Amino acid sequence: MTESNTRIDPKPNHIRFVLVRTSHPGNIGAAARAMRTMGYMRLVLVAPLHYPHADVVALAAGADDVLENIIVVPDLASAIAECRLVLGCTARQRGVPLPELTPRMAAERMLQVSVQDEVALVFGNERSGLENHELMRCNAAVHIPSAADFSSLNLAQAVQVLAYELRIATLQGVALLPPPLKSDPLATAEEMEYFFAHLAQMLNDINFHKGRASHTIHRRLRRLFQRAQPEQRELRILRGILDDAQRMARLASSREE
Amino acid sequence: MTESNTRIDPKPNHIRFVLVRTSHPGNIGAAARAMRTMGYMRLVLVAPLHYPHADVVALAAGADDVLENIIVVPDLASAIAECRLVLGCTARQRGVPLPELTPRMAAERMLQVSVQDEVALVFGNERSGLENHELMRCNAAVHIPSAADFSSLNLAQAVQVLAYELRIATLQGVALLPPPLKSDPLATAEEMEYFFAHLAQMLNDINFHKGRASHTIHRRLRRLFQRAQPEQRELRILRGILDDAQRMARLASSREE
Repeated sequence: MTESNTRIDPKPNHIRFVLVRTSHPGNIGAAARAMRTMGYMRLVLVAPLHYPHADVVALAAGADDVLENIIVVPDLASAIAECRLVLGCTARQRGVPLPELTPRMAAERMLQVSVQDEVALVFGNERSGLENHELMRCNAAVHIPSAADFSSLNLAQAVQVLAYELRIATLQGVALLPPPLKSDPLATAEEMEYFFAHLAQMLNDINFHKGRASHTIHRRLRRLFQRAQPEQRELRILRGILDDAQRMARLASSREE
Repeated sequence: MTESNTRIDPKPNHIRFVLVRTSHPGNIGAAARAMRTMGYMRLVLVAPLHYPHADVVALAAGADDVLENIIVVPDLASAIAECRLVLGCTARQRGVPLPELTPRMAAERMLQVSVQDEVALVFGNERSGLENHELMRCNAAVHIPSAADFSSLNLAQAVQVLAYELRIATLQGVALLPPPLKSDPLATAEEMEYFFAHLAQMLNDINFHKGRASHTIHRRLRRLFQRAQPEQRELRILRGILDDAQRMARLASSREE
């Protein structure tokens, strides 16, 4: 590997760690400590079961920079609204076949996007992980390749592994990363949700489902477009197409009457 | 990296984790769990302050393969006697100028040596680390590059990072990276071209362009869908949507006449 002059200025404060429905407050504290050791401060809690709690403080072992800035929100959508890259940490794939990244690949991708944009790294409940509807808000899954016959990393240890890979990538990799290809900003998670709602409405308007259940189609389309990670400009084009298709459907049905 | 025919046959049972003068038995259990998740079973305790202890079992979370084979010895020399590579995990260098390895370099070196020989990875007391006389029994130090202003990894988390790097090195070394997840075949280039032609026709039919040049739009949509690499099944859904939008457009225009 050679030195390069295309160094990226890393922005750890553009990367948030999101813990969803955490059961044990001690794990929140231990996760805060794990993040802090690698230079990451931004922790968002989605509907934690017990918070605030003395165990959070005890296990954080002095990671006050993290604790003082914890944000608590009621659902994942609120936690990631303005993010342009959302990665979900999973024990294994279950039903939602997202593209899967190794921790190392994930760290490099997060670093690239975080130079300009907000990034979220999402961890589910200790026992049940992330729900499918939550995974469907992620652009990709991160899988820590644990032993097949004993795969249960502690939550804080999973956080530690990812934070560690982020730091390693920052220390040794940033000089070597190819510059981001995209010039136009990526769509935010919130914009993607508006798009999916619009798409669903348009499918109704053009009578795409014809009485069949819409759920599977919606899930597959969501997966396709989440994987593509559209830019804002691309999303505007897609929504323009939806508008015109809806206009045709209205015209067709108004003439039908 | 390129494929190689110099595959290593990894020997995780040739690598022992050694915890020296551990204060908190919970950390012993959590370390056992961390090792076990990455496929490592051999744990040696040097003069633990409290052992056996219920917290060891509680925090091990079922890592019985590790617990049942724990060996307790009075000093480091006994723990590493037959090892040909001994690496000591340190927060920082203090007085004993050993060569210092990153976790990644350390993992590769351990794997190499472990093919034929015994290897030890040594972790000191939670607060005081390894004594200088203990570091002097190590071939090299391993330093986890934590944040300068908050460097205190929990013991079990340091074990997790090293065990994780060992596992990654093992997986990469033996070319065992997980196979791609997609079960449904990707669309062929030819199918993509049919799709793009269909999309262009549909945009005309719903009067998307409204007299503007279509070239830029086509290029951007092509780029978006090429990036997404649709599966054949996804392409069928997309083409079904195009069909229905075209049907609406035909209906609208036939009524218009």
